[in-house]
Amino acid sequence: MIQILCPKYLVPVRPLGQVLEQYSVAIDPASGRIMDVLPRVDAMEKHVGASVFEMETHVLLPGLVNMHTHSPMTLLRGYADDLRLDDWLRNHIWPAEANWADGDFVDLGTELAVAEMLRSGTTCFNENYFFPERMADVVEAAGIRACIGVPVIGVETKWAATTEEYLAKGLELVASRAGYPRLRFSIAPHAMYTVDVATLARIADLSERHDMPVHLHLLETESEIRNSQQAYGKMPLHHAEELGLLNERLIAVHMAHLSDSDIDLVARNNVNVVHCPQSNLKLASGVCRLTDLLAAGVNVSIGTDGAASNNDLDMFDELRTAALLAKGLSGDPCVVDAVTALDLVTINAARALGMEHEIGSVEVGKQADLCALDLACARTQPVHHVISQLVYSAASGQVSDVWVAGRQLVKSGELTLMDEARILSEAAAWAVGKLPETHQVRE
Amino acid sequence: MIQILCPKYLVPVRPLGQVLEQYSVAIDPASGRIMDVLPRVDAMEKHVGASVFEMETHVLLPGLVNMHTHSPMTLLRGYADDLRLDDWLRNHIWPAEANWADGDFVDLGTELAVAEMLRSGTTCFNENYFFPERMADVVEAAGIRACIGVPVIGVETKWAATTEEYLAKGLELVASRAGYPRLRFSIAPHAMYTVDVATLARIADLSERHDMPVHLHLLETESEIRNSQQAYGKMPLHHAEELGLLNERLIAVHMAHLSDSDIDLVARNNVNVVHCPQSNLKLASGVCRLTDLLAAGVNVSIGTDGAASNNDLDMFDELRTAALLAKGLSGDPCVVDAVTALDLVTINAARALGMEHEIGSVEVGKQADLCALDLACARTQPVHHVISQLVYSAASGQVSDVWVAGRQLVKSGELTLMDEARILSEAAAWAVGKLPETHQVRE
Repeated sequence: MIQILCPKYLVPVRPLGQVLEQYSVAIDPASGRIMDVLPRVDAMEKHVGASVFEMETHVLLPGLVNMHTHSPMTLLRGYADDLRLDDWLRNHIWPAEANWADGDFVDLGTELAVAEMLRSGTTCFNENYFFPERMADVVEAAGIRACIGVPVIGVETKWAATTEEYLAKGLELVASRAGYPRLRFSIAPHAMYTVDVATLARIADLSERHDMPVHLHLLETESEIRNSQQAYGKMPLHHAEELGLLNERLIAVHMAHLSDSDIDLVARNNVNVVHCPQSNLKLASGVCRLTDLLAAGVNVSIGTDGAASNNDLDMFDELRTAALLAKGLSGDPCVVDAVTALDLVTINAARALGMEHEIGSVEVGKQADLCALDLACARTQPVHHVISQLVYSAASGQVSDVWVAGRQLVKSGELTLMDEARILSEAAAWAVGKLPETHQVRE
Repeated sequence: MIQILCPKYLVPVRPLGQVLEQYSVAIDPASGRIMDVLPRVDAMEKHVGASVFEMETHVLLPGLVNMHTHSPMTLLRGYADDLRLDDWLRNHIWPAEANWADGDFVDLGTELAVAEMLRSGTTCFNENYFFPERMADVVEAAGIRACIGVPVIGVETKWAATTEEYLAKGLELVASRAGYPRLRFSIAPHAMYTVDVATLARIADLSERHDMPVHLHLLETESEIRNSQQAYGKMPLHHAEELGLLNERLIAVHMAHLSDSDIDLVARNNVNVVHCPQSNLKLASGVCRLTDLLAAGVNVSIGTDGAASNNDLDMFDELRTAALLAKGLSGDPCVVDAVTALDLVTINAARALGMEHEIGSVEVGKQADLCALDLACARTQPVHHVISQLVYSAASGQVSDVWVAGRQLVKSGELTLMDEARILSEAAAWAVGKLPETHQVRE
């Protein structure tokens, strides 16, 4: 049956800055796509007998896209905070992962992450972690959309031993899931310093031949730049350029250390940049020059990073941090205005994934990936500007309803497909005894 | 009847960093004070017949203190964003206030603010706006705690015409409300550049004689410093020192432009600093040197500022921004750790208000100003470190229960005393037609 969603306000993201009042969105049940965006009264006349979903105090907008996640790391949320990046990684996160990051860990951690993302209005995520086939299964079952990275790293894990094996297992997975409607794949080499040169070159080639995005941590820290100078006598970005990685398929994450000429290089090569403001602040890695990248015409989107360095997957919160930080650091409160900010988590992310014709805005023919927030809360009243309210005031806890490909995955604040009580209880049980020596609980 | 609160975790803030499991807090109904903090089993034995409130998946902590608010400005939330400070103030906020900021505006805006604050775990706020007697009435009725500023500004408003009149009306109010248990007062000169020198000197004297805090915007912007140099040939901080304002009664808000010697001066004089990270970022005013101030031993707390420049009154969000920003800007992820961060919104704020023996921690004899968050949500599971979870993961929407002076003002997510539906509906109605020319709603 055709569904008609009737919010108070509709923010379609395209046309830019538009806010529609008393408009409805009609969804085709067969394709999960948007059939119509039209005034409520016209929708009711045209689609007599459709299923009508009323949202009298709500704003409906495209589902948000989280452009950088390590979903299973939700299980390590708050496990090790307030530490230097190298101490955090080498003495806490990597040992924990070496001990525990098996297939079951990935199942449970991904379920927990997807529950958190759906509840906070995220309908698609760009992922990089081990056991991608397990994550793909969770995505299939949970009804969310994702671009799953084929992880490649020159370190043995429970999933694979060599870069050869990572790639072989990953490409087999990609082939086996071809045509799954809510699943895409990228190749996700960890970083320029953890994958050998020959493998990076091969990834550049595979990316071109299979038209797959490359999801890469790049220019996250100063030490990455120093090490690249020492190892290769060149900057990581130039190294990536030589290897054929700098192009419109690259999703370059962090980019927290950019010179002016780097920004030119990134812009000329149509590289997609993912800004992770909270993770970069928390680990004191550096700050991505969002304002300058946007001024140079670079396609920038936003990611939370894993929950071990954020420590949540809340894109409304991340969006607000990105906008406020850009203003504060540039000294100009006019930059990254609310309308621009909303693009970062919707249409820009869709473009980075090569999916700008499928998701990222509420337009006829696109997938019905949508989220609704209830504005009838003290923190979002009164409403002078709807888009300002979304960017500067709304909390993800106000997300009431979420659809992916036309299927309602959150209804009046409750998950419809996932067994959240089981997931929370398993996550709590998993953590017991994992951190006895430093647990803050005393007495 | 004695109340016994039984959370899963108790974070008393003092002793520093402590997390207690299966502990209970007993509240004396006559005084609203904490009678006991003891293991749950002992509490049940000692207080047979008491009213027991179970919170099986919750953490209980002191209510948060918002150290800088202009509560009625909730009605201007999102009214004018993405603008330069002078444009924002002179062309939008001040004209709007001149038109509308009367007693009824203050009533409704304060109610809306208090509803938002209570729902997000704030139990006390440090306020500065016009019509303080109307705000005091709302505070009385709503059951929250506040320190209300006597506003003084060399600009005529609907409340008073001259600094003389501001002070006279304010001091009359203070005298008339002496002994009201949840109300304190400060003198709140707007800024060094909007109040004349003679009045500032008089305020310094009144503050000493009446032992009242002085709540002052200080060093918010670079232009404030330039203008002070031009007008007085000295920096605002030195000017304040000469006028006798730099002492332990001063609550200096923003402080976004501090030199090393300024920090020494502030530390030597025991000035209390209030950091407003989101407002300062959003208006691109500058950034308070939180890490350096703490290292110098300065008592720093946190405020949201008004909702027109934030755009919410969410202290959990503000706290996280303060901690992340300090790490990012200092380049050191170890600074402002979770335990330190929690102090900023609790015991440090209590100290700034001269109330460190009354509120700010869960200790026997203190007021029972408490908030509980339900951790059984995807974004706060699993729990490795309770305090990390509060600072880096929790959302204010998880606040389930709030007490002020032992009275439960939020119960299972609902306000017990305030008529929230009426307040939201009146706030929505108030905004209608206020912004016709620039409203983003199109079509």
